[in-house]
Amino acid sequence: MEKTARARLNGAVSRDPLEPKAGRDTVRRHNLSLVLRAVKDSGETTRAGVSARVGLTRAAISSLVEQLLECGFLSESGKTFSGQAGRPGTVLKVARTGVAGLGVEINVDYVCVCVVDLAGTDRVRLVEHLDNRDATPAQVLHRAARTAARALTSAGEQELRPVGAALALPGLVSCGTVRQAPNLGWSGVPAEGPFATALAALRPRLPALPVRSENEANLAALAELWFGALGPVRTFLYLSGEIGVGGALVLEGELLRGAHGFAGEIGHAMASAEGPECRCGARGCLEQYAGQSAMLRAAGVEETHGASAVAELERRARAGDERTLAALERAGLMLGRVLSGAVNLFDPAAVVLGGIYRPLAPWLIPRAAAELSARVVSGLWPCQGVRLRASSPAADAARGAAALVVRDVLTDPLAYGERVPAG
Amino acid sequence: MEKTARARLNGAVSRDPLEPKAGRDTVRRHNLSLVLRAVKDSGETTRAGVSARVGLTRAAISSLVEQLLECGFLSESGKTFSGQAGRPGTVLKVARTGVAGLGVEINVDYVCVCVVDLAGTDRVRLVEHLDNRDATPAQVLHRAARTAARALTSAGEQELRPVGAALALPGLVSCGTVRQAPNLGWSGVPAEGPFATALAALRPRLPALPVRSENEANLAALAELWFGALGPVRTFLYLSGEIGVGGALVLEGELLRGAHGFAGEIGHAMASAEGPECRCGARGCLEQYAGQSAMLRAAGVEETHGASAVAELERRARAGDERTLAALERAGLMLGRVLSGAVNLFDPAAVVLGGIYRPLAPWLIPRAAAELSARVVSGLWPCQGVRLRASSPAADAARGAAALVVRDVLTDPLAYGERVPAG
Repeated sequence: MEKTARARLNGAVSRDPLEPKAGRDTVRRHNLSLVLRAVKDSGETTRAGVSARVGLTRAAISSLVEQLLECGFLSESGKTFSGQAGRPGTVLKVARTGVAGLGVEINVDYVCVCVVDLAGTDRVRLVEHLDNRDATPAQVLHRAARTAARALTSAGEQELRPVGAALALPGLVSCGTVRQAPNLGWSGVPAEGPFATALAALRPRLPALPVRSENEANLAALAELWFGALGPVRTFLYLSGEIGVGGALVLEGELLRGAHGFAGEIGHAMASAEGPECRCGARGCLEQYAGQSAMLRAAGVEETHGASAVAELERRARAGDERTLAALERAGLMLGRVLSGAVNLFDPAAVVLGGIYRPLAPWLIPRAAAELSARVVSGLWPCQGVRLRASSPAADAARGAAALVVRDVLTDPLAYGERVPAG
Repeated sequence: MEKTARARLNGAVSRDPLEPKAGRDTVRRHNLSLVLRAVKDSGETTRAGVSARVGLTRAAISSLVEQLLECGFLSESGKTFSGQAGRPGTVLKVARTGVAGLGVEINVDYVCVCVVDLAGTDRVRLVEHLDNRDATPAQVLHRAARTAARALTSAGEQELRPVGAALALPGLVSCGTVRQAPNLGWSGVPAEGPFATALAALRPRLPALPVRSENEANLAALAELWFGALGPVRTFLYLSGEIGVGGALVLEGELLRGAHGFAGEIGHAMASAEGPECRCGARGCLEQYAGQSAMLRAAGVEETHGASAVAELERRARAGDERTLAALERAGLMLGRVLSGAVNLFDPAAVVLGGIYRPLAPWLIPRAAAELSARVVSGLWPCQGVRLRASSPAADAARGAAALVVRDVLTDPLAYGERVPAG
């Protein structure tokens, strides 16, 4: 089903024979999406520019653009613009107000909420550092809803109207439920429903937001794909360093989910067979060397430093503290060991280190890269552009979550418009 | 491109708008493929049966069937058949003669050639056990061509006409060249060209066969998918135990190739950081514990036993020889360690052990499965049907290679027919 959807998004269609019920309405909705995405991808353009890009006639484009303007998805400025082929026209952009997406990352020691507009820009961001291990799942979800409600108030002040929310959660997520999140101590915890209820209770006069949920590393990987600096790379492995170590595989621009939706659990790959016991029940998992707690412990930094603990780790590394450097060297070695197996198996064009690995990358990457060079069989590491790199600053799980909602709008804008005139 | 092709194969089409040049000819060719595959998948059927399955009118089906009969892809028997809906008709089957595929597996200590007919049946098989490490790549490819020529003669006697050949090679293969095959000692060796030339020289009066090449584990995995006992499983991990240990990932019925086409190299995943040096240059690779040579050495079986060495290993295990059992236990442990990381990362619905692991599975699987149970994070191993199992006897790389050629025929039969009447 996703494949058909993806195939359809490749070009303007007049009828899709693979969907027997497709009619005029489906075609027009599809073409509206095509035009909206063309404007978004261009930044600024004209009707002629859209026509050239999309391959529909000027007349068809004009009608589609009119509808998108009426529904509030596009904005038009009076100035003319002659930088492209065709006669000058007024400038079209995606609207900075109106529909938007809400992303809510609930992690072990923080909650991060953000609102992203149609262009993908991060417009509101609220971060609260607190230990979610101290509270029940219901309390944690209620806290997150409270933070989300505050962000929604800010969004409203900017005339943004989130049409859905996505939760980013540090564990195995399926069907709205956290199947396992060892570091939160959650197992079989429904997340979407309780969050939606709590949020609705905080905004009694407003329509309820549809809520979905997803693994945080998956969403951080999508954020890297959409907003990062990967260039042409569309097949990569993403590692998200937090209290736990999450991972995601992206294959040709799509999340690889595996048979049960749980692919990417690299934090529990074996780094050392006889290593310390892990919360997952096994021994010597990567998390026991390269997770936040493990690195802090090895460096002698107190975990109670909370949000500042990682900053303290970075400060000590920068100052040349030997114990810290040894801890990061060991974490880099273990990352390299596990990543080499993953690279041999999955053959990605890049490996991205996100979360707390981003500030620590200068100390982690050299050792990890050396291990990769030694262990990746193809001899392609790193000579053909395969790279180990830190994630982009603007790309994280909360933004990825919000952008996931926006992607739905871009795929079928009419389902979300303020007014829906007849096609 | 592959996605579009796959989407198109899902149903009968009258026009595909994603391909602007698609015309009547393209549509008819597609529908011919649809009908041919419907007959193949049914085993035996009637025109009415095909019509019901494919969703085209009886008249259209009759015309398509006529053309497939004329071209020699289908055969028709006089008997009537009323086991299905509609009035009785003559029985249609795919032809047992005519177009076929040639598969040639060149491995470290054997060459296996097979010819597969349109129905996927293995019709000719020739295996030669010999040490390909003793010869130059040119000599090895020439030997393989000689064996292939013999198989082609047998195929001709059965009125089979292979229309292409696929080489299965134990290494990283791209663009017709073996980039690296550490156990053969090959690096940057062109394979398709020299094999095609050698084969053409052995059959001077016959048209040259197009030759392609592919990693052997990839082809063995496809054979397992097409001819094995996986049932509904379409996402799995395949391990091919030979002198080396190959691997393949199959995602929703398609090979996952990765960014450079080299995905699946699980033989060089780290099983033990400080383990023995491997031919790839790293230490403690899985191959050093679970490769054929490593297991024979650990069990004290002489490698010079050649083809019978693995049989000897099996015999000793069956007889309860302690050294052999310890060697297989260790191999199973290391398989389990490496597989647990791969399962955490890729989340397959099954793991299949092929090659020499098939006869040795009774001794390898218990230890490997225990390790998987302990290390796979999701708690889904093996309770939701995720299984570690031996490969099917009828599915190997040579058959997968031959079937790959046949798949091309099934996808566009007109490109391969004996006569091509006007559509």
